[in-house]
Amino acid sequence: MTTPLSPTERTTVRRGRNRAQTDRAPMHALLADALVAHVGVVVGDHPVVLPVAFAVDLDGPDEGGTVYIHGSVAARWLTGAATRTVCVTVTEVDGLVAARSGFHHSMNYRSVVVIGEARLVEDPVEKARALTLTVDHMVPGRSATLRPHTRKEVAATSVLAVPLLEASMKVRTGGPVDEPDDVAAGVWGGVIPVRRTAAAPVAGDDSHDDAPPDVVRRAAGLA
Amino acid sequence: MTTPLSPTERTTVRRGRNRAQTDRAPMHALLADALVAHVGVVVGDHPVVLPVAFAVDLDGPDEGGTVYIHGSVAARWLTGAATRTVCVTVTEVDGLVAARSGFHHSMNYRSVVVIGEARLVEDPVEKARALTLTVDHMVPGRSATLRPHTRKEVAATSVLAVPLLEASMKVRTGGPVDEPDDVAAGVWGGVIPVRRTAAAPVAGDDSHDDAPPDVVRRAAGLA
Repeated sequence: MTTPLSPTERTTVRRGRNRAQTDRAPMHALLADALVAHVGVVVGDHPVVLPVAFAVDLDGPDEGGTVYIHGSVAARWLTGAATRTVCVTVTEVDGLVAARSGFHHSMNYRSVVVIGEARLVEDPVEKARALTLTVDHMVPGRSATLRPHTRKEVAATSVLAVPLLEASMKVRTGGPVDEPDDVAAGVWGGVIPVRRTAAAPVAGDDSHDDAPPDVVRRAAGLA
Repeated sequence: MTTPLSPTERTTVRRGRNRAQTDRAPMHALLADALVAHVGVVVGDHPVVLPVAFAVDLDGPDEGGTVYIHGSVAARWLTGAATRTVCVTVTEVDGLVAARSGFHHSMNYRSVVVIGEARLVEDPVEKARALTLTVDHMVPGRSATLRPHTRKEVAATSVLAVPLLEASMKVRTGGPVDEPDDVAAGVWGGVIPVRRTAAAPVAGDDSHDDAPPDVVRRAAGLA
């Protein structure tokens, strides 16, 4: 049986419960779409939030799947987070909600918050797989066109695994929800849709111009 | 004299120092561009990272300017962060860097990390100003077209102020940086540019279709 979202006290949505999701499928879709996660760790006596590339392995070793983030072995914030509780948050903005009052302005968005104990991945096979998934998260299919990671490259990289089990998701869609008096006053209310788009690939200065199909597909389909 | 970026130990960029910025102007530009901040707070014994709308007041009461975030007075994570150190991170992705090896894959991005003690804004004038700035951050000029906030609305909202003084910024631009052997092997390397775009405003079900100039401008110019 699949564990529903918000299975624990600390992943229970409190504010805006009408926006809370219970099904895991929309979460998996958001994680597939998004490019960046924001990872929160405690450093000394205060939180630090850093943007990271990430990958998800729904068949990973953790119940509910595994989120992988990585960095240099010299990145102390990353290795220091091992065995500690971290928070991985992924957000996409879908629209600016222009209400008839400042108070009711909002955004349409999808957001996932994952809380879990970070595990430093030691197994070189799992590490290499996590890095391959991370590349393919950026450009699906790219890894298969590249040489394998070298042992030195894998050794130079730290990978953290965070279980996807304890997670919550909030989604807001639709137009503004305004006071009746403000609607009656005739002020316009609505949404400015926003999305991320990609442009045609730009070859590096030291590269020929013949971008491969995986890159062309990604550039055409990111929207 | 303006304080440069990374003025403290905890805002000193360690990894990827070549990407660290020292000037505040690019940070101000990123904060003006971005729609969402990710705020890190410590709840109990673990970090929580939540996406929030925000606003910046460079003429705010704090040295270096003030970042404002807000939420319902019932949002415990928000009011609980008052007088505590929080981290406000803002990231924009500008490109997917498709290198000739998985190892050298990267992203072009701009990212600001602000660390500071959160102050619960008590003064109703500062609160209302922060909320007005937040609306105008979403849709520049919108506040002037709306009725003022009511006292009840201001009272129902908690606003946190975070000084913009302790901040760092990292920027990556340009193509992949590959191993000479991988370049020589003839693999394509380059960048897929990505950006956020807006579409034409969509009127709410209870609204007429005549979107005002501020909304039309925002929808046309977000790119």
